[in-house]
Amino acid sequence: MTDCIRLAHGSGGRLTHRLIRDIFRRHFGDDVPLDDSFIARSPGERIAVTTDAYVVDPIFFPGGDIGRLAVSGTVNDLAVQGAMPVYIAVAFVLEEGLPLNELEQVVQSMAATCAGVGARIVAGDTKVVPRGKGDRLFVATSGLGVVLSPWPLSGANARAGDLVLVSGPVGEHEMAILVSRSGIELGGEFRSDVAPVLDLARALWESCEVHAMRDPTRGGLATALNEIARQSQVAIEVDEGQVPVRSEILGACELLGFDPLYLACEGRLIAVVPEAEAERALSVMRSQPLGRDAAVIGRVLPEPKGRVYLRTSVGGRRILDLLSGEQLPRIC
Amino acid sequence: MTDCIRLAHGSGGRLTHRLIRDIFRRHFGDDVPLDDSFIARSPGERIAVTTDAYVVDPIFFPGGDIGRLAVSGTVNDLAVQGAMPVYIAVAFVLEEGLPLNELEQVVQSMAATCAGVGARIVAGDTKVVPRGKGDRLFVATSGLGVVLSPWPLSGANARAGDLVLVSGPVGEHEMAILVSRSGIELGGEFRSDVAPVLDLARALWESCEVHAMRDPTRGGLATALNEIARQSQVAIEVDEGQVPVRSEILGACELLGFDPLYLACEGRLIAVVPEAEAERALSVMRSQPLGRDAAVIGRVLPEPKGRVYLRTSVGGRRILDLLSGEQLPRIC
Repeated sequence: MTDCIRLAHGSGGRLTHRLIRDIFRRHFGDDVPLDDSFIARSPGERIAVTTDAYVVDPIFFPGGDIGRLAVSGTVNDLAVQGAMPVYIAVAFVLEEGLPLNELEQVVQSMAATCAGVGARIVAGDTKVVPRGKGDRLFVATSGLGVVLSPWPLSGANARAGDLVLVSGPVGEHEMAILVSRSGIELGGEFRSDVAPVLDLARALWESCEVHAMRDPTRGGLATALNEIARQSQVAIEVDEGQVPVRSEILGACELLGFDPLYLACEGRLIAVVPEAEAERALSVMRSQPLGRDAAVIGRVLPEPKGRVYLRTSVGGRRILDLLSGEQLPRIC
Repeated sequence: MTDCIRLAHGSGGRLTHRLIRDIFRRHFGDDVPLDDSFIARSPGERIAVTTDAYVVDPIFFPGGDIGRLAVSGTVNDLAVQGAMPVYIAVAFVLEEGLPLNELEQVVQSMAATCAGVGARIVAGDTKVVPRGKGDRLFVATSGLGVVLSPWPLSGANARAGDLVLVSGPVGEHEMAILVSRSGIELGGEFRSDVAPVLDLARALWESCEVHAMRDPTRGGLATALNEIARQSQVAIEVDEGQVPVRSEILGACELLGFDPLYLACEGRLIAVVPEAEAERALSVMRSQPLGRDAAVIGRVLPEPKGRVYLRTSVGGRRILDLLSGEQLPRIC
């Protein structure tokens, strides 16, 4: 019989301590004291703080798992603001009955993703809910980073005349989840792009002037651009033909009725840079493993404020708005 | 019809933005930019980082709610390490169907508790899971504090000869949850003690030498003392007759078969201080509203390492161990 999470794993007693020792400290490292909070020197003068909850179903999917997703998501939220991740805190909500080896796989994956970006997991917590009151494993990760970008990166800093770049093909994460959840046989490979975009972001802010960066997760490219347009009080015009989308993703979208511009990415970066910097930014992105397919996809206009337009391949122009309902339930 | 959380509230689209505007920013303040992470000056040289997930059922209970619980828990985890809370990050997992006014009540309660300790909520995230895949509302809070205590507070710093103090009667939070969940009519009032213990902790570290502090939450006083005994490699002997427990709690425990020493508190503080400081520490605690019933409850001994003993009222002595199963499912 597989060992599974029991309610007593959340009681604070023996089983909780065993979980901490055999799974968390084994993979996250046992050099952090077992105290209520972690004490350290501040990593620098300017810091960045972020948090996210992850509820993806399934928790293991082609290209990744909820652990890699959670750490990448937190790292990316710091990276797009010009910060290097330093400390990460992890809070689990486990459903009674979750196999311990699945938890361990997720924990291993988190540890590996952290190690890959030089961050350290320094605080954690685990709660257990009765069967049927959760969904296997939820995790909330929080990150503390040190700001290294010389530019004040914010979604509010896009300016008319800037160009918009994206680091690679969009829609891969959400389509991988969709396909893996539906069990539909579509032909072609659908793998999540989940990855930390820290190297990409850092290469950019170190080599050219950047006004805004964002990772187009939930709601995809269209939503992220709408957020930038609203925060910066500008318009953005996207050239549909320039947005990189793999043909398998396009095909699957047509078949299933989705718009790839609204599908979540988990390893892509949007950068808004002055026009004079765009060529350099593009070549910097393309010199990075995750940015080989980077493209200039659009331009920032002064008006109408807060709007995103799509110039379509056939020459039309339509509003690319926030979704008013949803394409899909919870995938990121 | 009451407005409820729908899956689309988690889509990143219009409904997500409305939730952020009408509930989160309305109560948490709208002066934080809508970026992926929050950028600020570091609050100081030495910082403290903590995280916790909260899954209490019911989410509203006599004496508090999950919002006050989450913020108090995070504040307390910082306070017992000698840190003042500065920034708090909040990640929600909401179940489809949760009434919006309940969410708003929780958010208001978090905002009020934060304001009470001078901390600020600077980052957040919300995910929605389908009906039956969650339990109304889970929340994970993370805190960043600045260390102000002149003493290095850690569960590893208790020393033989130290005395152990507790700030007030134990078991109140868990019994309130239990009674409110069971629907049993017990006579007497059962209210959670949930509260930030920051003022109490700060008054202590400012006025006397303190070796260790801890808030006895999940697993109660007995578990917290076991953790200190193990971390510090000492023994602790507790005098049962000195542990403050309200008579209603004792009665309910006898009736329901629980040991109050293992019931969670959410507004109590354990302090381990040198014997010479104990009298001062006690009077400092008693001068605080939350510490009026503080008591010296035990003593740190050199051996046997990692053990906690209870000297019972009738003169016996027994091991007070970690629970090997659980008394109760998830209440804190």
